[in-house]
Amino acid sequence: MAKLDAQLQTAYPTMVAWRRYMHQHPELSFHEKETSRWIAQRLREIGCDVKEGVGGYGLVAAVRGDKPGPVIALRTDFDALPIQDEKAADYASKVPGVMHACGHDAHTATMLAIAAFYQANRDQLAGERRFLFQPAEEVSPGGAIGMIGEGAVQGVDAVYGVHLWTPFPYGTVASRSGPFMAAPDEIYIDIAGKGGHGALPHETVDAVLVGAAMVQALQTVVSRSVNPLDPSVVTIGSFHAGSTANVIAERCRLTGTVRTFTEDVRTLIRGRLETIVEHTAAMHGARATLEYRGGYPTVVNDAREADRFFGVAARTFGAEAVTESPLIMAGEDFSYYLREVPGCFMFVGAGNPACGATFPHHHPRFDIDERAMLMSAKLMVAMAEDFAAEASSDGARSER
Amino acid sequence: MAKLDAQLQTAYPTMVAWRRYMHQHPELSFHEKETSRWIAQRLREIGCDVKEGVGGYGLVAAVRGDKPGPVIALRTDFDALPIQDEKAADYASKVPGVMHACGHDAHTATMLAIAAFYQANRDQLAGERRFLFQPAEEVSPGGAIGMIGEGAVQGVDAVYGVHLWTPFPYGTVASRSGPFMAAPDEIYIDIAGKGGHGALPHETVDAVLVGAAMVQALQTVVSRSVNPLDPSVVTIGSFHAGSTANVIAERCRLTGTVRTFTEDVRTLIRGRLETIVEHTAAMHGARATLEYRGGYPTVVNDAREADRFFGVAARTFGAEAVTESPLIMAGEDFSYYLREVPGCFMFVGAGNPACGATFPHHHPRFDIDERAMLMSAKLMVAMAEDFAAEASSDGARSER
Amino acid sequence: MAKLDAQLQTAYPTMVAWRRYMHQHPELSFHEKETSRWIAQRLREIGCDVKEGVGGYGLVAAVRGDKPGPVIALRTDFDALPIQDEKAADYASKVPGVMHACGHDAHTATMLAIAAFYQANRDQLAGERRFLFQPAEEVSPGGAIGMIGEGAVQGVDAVYGVHLWTPFPYGTVASRSGPFMAAPDEIYIDIAGKGGHGALPHETVDAVLVGAAMVQALQTVVSRSVNPLDPSVVTIGSFHAGSTANVIAERCRLTGTVRTFTEDVRTLIRGRLETIVEHTAAMHGARATLEYRGGYPTVVNDAREADRFFGVAARTFGAEAVTESPLIMAGEDFSYYLREVPGCFMFVGAGNPACGATFPHHHPRFDIDERAMLMSAKLMVAMAEDFAAEASSDGARSER
Amino acid sequence: MAKLDAQLQTAYPTMVAWRRYMHQHPELSFHEKETSRWIAQRLREIGCDVKEGVGGYGLVAAVRGDKPGPVIALRTDFDALPIQDEKAADYASKVPGVMHACGHDAHTATMLAIAAFYQANRDQLAGERRFLFQPAEEVSPGGAIGMIGEGAVQGVDAVYGVHLWTPFPYGTVASRSGPFMAAPDEIYIDIAGKGGHGALPHETVDAVLVGAAMVQALQTVVSRSVNPLDPSVVTIGSFHAGSTANVIAERCRLTGTVRTFTEDVRTLIRGRLETIVEHTAAMHGARATLEYRGGYPTVVNDAREADRFFGVAARTFGAEAVTESPLIMAGEDFSYYLREVPGCFMFVGAGNPACGATFPHHHPRFDIDERAMLMSAKLMVAMAEDFAAEASSDGARSER
Repeated sequence: MAKLDAQLQTAYPTMVAWRRYMHQHPELSFHEKETSRWIAQRLREIGCDVKEGVGGYGLVAAVRGDKPGPVIALRTDFDALPIQDEKAADYASKVPGVMHACGHDAHTATMLAIAAFYQANRDQLAGERRFLFQPAEEVSPGGAIGMIGEGAVQGVDAVYGVHLWTPFPYGTVASRSGPFMAAPDEIYIDIAGKGGHGALPHETVDAVLVGAAMVQALQTVVSRSVNPLDPSVVTIGSFHAGSTANVIAERCRLTGTVRTFTEDVRTLIRGRLETIVEHTAAMHGARATLEYRGGYPTVVNDAREADRFFGVAARTFGAEAVTESPLIMAGEDFSYYLREVPGCFMFVGAGNPACGATFPHHHPRFDIDERAMLMSAKLMVAMAEDFAAEASSDGARSER
Repeated sequence: MAKLDAQLQTAYPTMVAWRRYMHQHPELSFHEKETSRWIAQRLREIGCDVKEGVGGYGLVAAVRGDKPGPVIALRTDFDALPIQDEKAADYASKVPGVMHACGHDAHTATMLAIAAFYQANRDQLAGERRFLFQPAEEVSPGGAIGMIGEGAVQGVDAVYGVHLWTPFPYGTVASRSGPFMAAPDEIYIDIAGKGGHGALPHETVDAVLVGAAMVQALQTVVSRSVNPLDPSVVTIGSFHAGSTANVIAERCRLTGTVRTFTEDVRTLIRGRLETIVEHTAAMHGARATLEYRGGYPTVVNDAREADRFFGVAARTFGAEAVTESPLIMAGEDFSYYLREVPGCFMFVGAGNPACGATFPHHHPRFDIDERAMLMSAKLMVAMAEDFAAEASSDGARSER
Repeated sequence: MAKLDAQLQTAYPTMVAWRRYMHQHPELSFHEKETSRWIAQRLREIGCDVKEGVGGYGLVAAVRGDKPGPVIALRTDFDALPIQDEKAADYASKVPGVMHACGHDAHTATMLAIAAFYQANRDQLAGERRFLFQPAEEVSPGGAIGMIGEGAVQGVDAVYGVHLWTPFPYGTVASRSGPFMAAPDEIYIDIAGKGGHGALPHETVDAVLVGAAMVQALQTVVSRSVNPLDPSVVTIGSFHAGSTANVIAERCRLTGTVRTFTEDVRTLIRGRLETIVEHTAAMHGARATLEYRGGYPTVVNDAREADRFFGVAARTFGAEAVTESPLIMAGEDFSYYLREVPGCFMFVGAGNPACGATFPHHHPRFDIDERAMLMSAKLMVAMAEDFAAEASSDGARSER
Repeated sequence: MAKLDAQLQTAYPTMVAWRRYMHQHPELSFHEKETSRWIAQRLREIGCDVKEGVGGYGLVAAVRGDKPGPVIALRTDFDALPIQDEKAADYASKVPGVMHACGHDAHTATMLAIAAFYQANRDQLAGERRFLFQPAEEVSPGGAIGMIGEGAVQGVDAVYGVHLWTPFPYGTVASRSGPFMAAPDEIYIDIAGKGGHGALPHETVDAVLVGAAMVQALQTVVSRSVNPLDPSVVTIGSFHAGSTANVIAERCRLTGTVRTFTEDVRTLIRGRLETIVEHTAAMHGARATLEYRGGYPTVVNDAREADRFFGVAARTFGAEAVTESPLIMAGEDFSYYLREVPGCFMFVGAGNPACGATFPHHHPRFDIDERAMLMSAKLMVAMAEDFAAEASSDGARSER
């Protein structure tokens, strides 16, 4: 497939057109009905095999080569966010309050181009390349679980995915072996005290005080209970109690997020939270419940596939373009695929002040350097074909 | 005025009728338009001199005796509360969400009866008896200031007022020399931190944390800074910050109440609050403002007039009916009159399980033993006439 | 006993001499061997009946009149404090590090003069006057328990005691009906965490942190759990944990004091302390114990005897010399006598800038206006004889 | 130098003898007079060039080869700890309360053997091998600064050092590129409140409370202010305030340690500490000072020299013996040499249950698998000679 570079380059204007169309027509997580239909139409034009309605609005497309070889899955996502687009660009969102502020539009345009590339080269293809178009990456429980449940990765030998990433400059690629992106869990704490007159505290159990004491005590989870070498976060994002100045609040509700990179630390923190919530309430004569909603698991890249990334990326883009990413506190439900199949999740730098791509993900003025789509396409195809070449050379894929 | 008892007794059914009419037609503080008009009509029927529109919906009525003597003011209030009446009584409020849940209806019915009594006995009256019908006692800044500003207590030698009080049983009366009811101030604290991603605390200033630390630190005002012999309360009644679990809150708003009995303690606490708010914010890199809204001053009874109460009440109701009230954490804008003129604020017990008068003030099922109105009328007239008698006997009112 | 004033006046120089001798020869609580012997000698010189060794170094002396009448006990104390005397006076303490810094020397000199007075006037005396010379008032469990246990107040009809008090000016006397001086309890909290390397907090349970959290939580007892109208104090006086900067402490010890005026509040606070200690420790995985050492009970003056004080004092010293004392946060084991027998504990002002008596009790430069001894003697004798006169007039002592 | 392995193997019994002699004769940091003299004697026996008294009890020995080549420094340390040896071994410490509980005895025995090896092979040696025998590694400010100040690393091209490490098993070696061991700073906080009677908190500034609030607030430095990806520790190791239960403490002293891996984080934490200390004190009306004693800097291995380690170690001991060490929270003043000269600090596993080497460093029963000395010697010589070979081959040492 030596024509890789040239063919993808040729497809680039189409990628841009597709991405901009999607950018103008965003849909929220779990509500991507039109987007899903549009993707299906594009895939049928390409000539791929397409299966719609896989885990909701998900689609699975495939190109099967004439030669035997491994089954390799490449994944994209296509949901948007409840954010008002504040860009001046003519391809800005046409839907009030909804915006592709995370780059999923570009992910999907890229994946369509990859599918077209494989379809055009199926005569040279060894094995199957499967394209996972996943809805609802932004909102727990995410779209990955549903697609996996309906067989999206059955028979798959390796899975790869890319996130365009504006904090990294265009021209670079990055990934990391082992734990890479955090498990983003959510916590909901409800405190029941006993309300009463603001001047008669002794007749009450002050829910504001209990909540405040809890916030203070929760700081010690990270400062004292977790190994300082294990990155973790416990954040209380909201605190609501009481309605008037001179009435002592009966109830208090705290919500928050926990970020960890290993199950051990996650379990440790959950246990500490339960203990702190229970005893802070009991100390003050209140009752409290903790609801711990486990979010996506940690994204854990397979060590061998991460090694493949460092090799493939250096050969494809030059060693100076490749960096080891630090741990990333954000989460991704790509983690579910990695629990099933070895693989690697990768970042392609998309930041570029020259084209206004300077805003963080989820920002109302978020945008990308669109050329990152081309790099992303090259990277995924190169990863897949490196895997296939290795499989063919050692004939040892099956026992992996 | 030996006919006092008999005449007031005769007026009792009318007091009850008036009270129940008012109970059915409550109006909120500063909006007592119809109530004010209704009172004016009653006073005109009685034949009093009436001045309407004194400090808003306030009224000043007066009976001037044929003989010379002191000017003595008696005060009532007539606003209701934003509470839904849940009583079964046929005289329950007819206004949804508004209710005389504090007894001001009874205060006013009593005062009308007192005015009628004096009008009927003006031939024997020495000096002037002035009746202050005050609106808006429940809501800061209160109606007293406005009435005083328009001359309601000009030339007044003494002022008396009564609150019916269900925590004390019917049949008892109580008061206290010096500080009696608390100054109920309000505090509003706004914290400005720096919001951000829940997983990136180091890029933020966590307003939830700052608020929680402030609530904790504020506990030390009462526990350490105020003399344990000076009763005081600092309550944070509401705490609101943030909107979602995984975003660190940019802002936090606390509201609360402060209760004190002396200006020294009030000033001390205000200073401590300012210091704590300033330094807790600064410690965490946030900014915070404290708005300290001074409420009514402490109700401070004149020592001599309180002595008068203990003597008059014992003679009127028997020694066993009279108690020294503890300090009361609630506030009253009667305090403003006491800053201008010597006087005494008094409680008349109105609780009685036999007639369902067991609920605290401001409760949706609040009610009184109506006979307390009669005791209240007797007490106020007796206080006024004792003062007048003393003034006459020593001819020394002027140099007081 | 009309000669009271003149006779006591005559005795004043002796009082001063005795007080100064004792001042130079102080002994610590429970070690007042020589002081006790010296008092016994004085009492024998006076001619009293003396019983030594009552509850340790305590003494009970008595004068029994020729006429029948009540038994009235007057109490003094005679222990000193572990304080280095820093006065320049020639009667300063001769014992390094020990000092009569609380006025017990003057109490005792006064009581000797009273005993002498009664002995000289025993022919006119109705009933018995008993003089309780008590050791160890300063140190819990105090000397009163022991003396009571050995019958010191058997058959006693009333008990009186005086404390000279430098915060009140010479020339004044004060007392209070009901609760007067606080119950001073002590608390000892031991926290067992798990020590370890200062850089590895996750392997430890940080006892410093647990202690700090406990101190913070304890503030809420006074600020939220106790009725603001009930004066109370919870103080942590010492906090000791750890020995080096880079080792996490295994143990933490807190000691403190609790001051209350009623058993209800005392019980409430003790319960709150137990709850807070238990749950703060449990929250952090530590163990903690609370030892609550009940100190002297609250000094509660009999209402009738307090009334007697206000009457007697006004007649003796003039109304302007008499005040109602505020509650006093210090404790006194005079409370034990008051549990057995009706009586009254009284303060006699001893402060006077003109003679350097401006320092608080327990200060290294503490001194008194010695004339307060004379007032104290007059007050106690007047109280006793008022009681006796009343008993005689109504012949009704027995059924009291 | 192909005879490396054999010659060092032959020297092993001598290493053991030397190590055990030192183990029996430990001396505390900055007091290693006899140890220094003993080392000098050994070096003279070996025939090295020796310079004594370099930065206190430090020694610099050197072997200069006949051929030109680089100057390479190898470093050992030789101070012991104030710990009572609780081992049963016949080579246990003979000095009560002093013990080689960190392996410095073995470091030094190894270094003597290396010096002997080079001396024996000086005819084949290219350049100079310099042996730094450093006192006082355990106690800040450490012995390295003094030796560097007196020229110990002048002209040196590379520096290597080893720590035997019982948490890693015998047979393994480990190191890490870039930041490796933490900067262990110390903090000393003095709080000045205002002492007073335990029952009169309003007259005091409670230093226990201020200290407790500070400990709580300090938790937020790690939990909120530092990037969760940057490992850090803030520990308060000791907290001392007050002396008795019923006196409010005037002063409070906190001591603690801070651990960081970069100057940015160190500066950030120091700034946060200053802010928290200042404002916590100010909030309560106290004064406080923070003394921040910078300890050793972070040990930062040169990237190229760390690469050399991974290559050399794999060739010397096999790839399976080599691991990338995690960050280590302990500190080392080897960091000072690395600020002057490129180099690498390395761990050689010394733990082995079979010979009782299962205790952590600084434990009273600490011991090592002595064979780790032999691995250490081989590793340091191999590193030095790899550097020399590279220097010779590319002739490019000077422009590095």
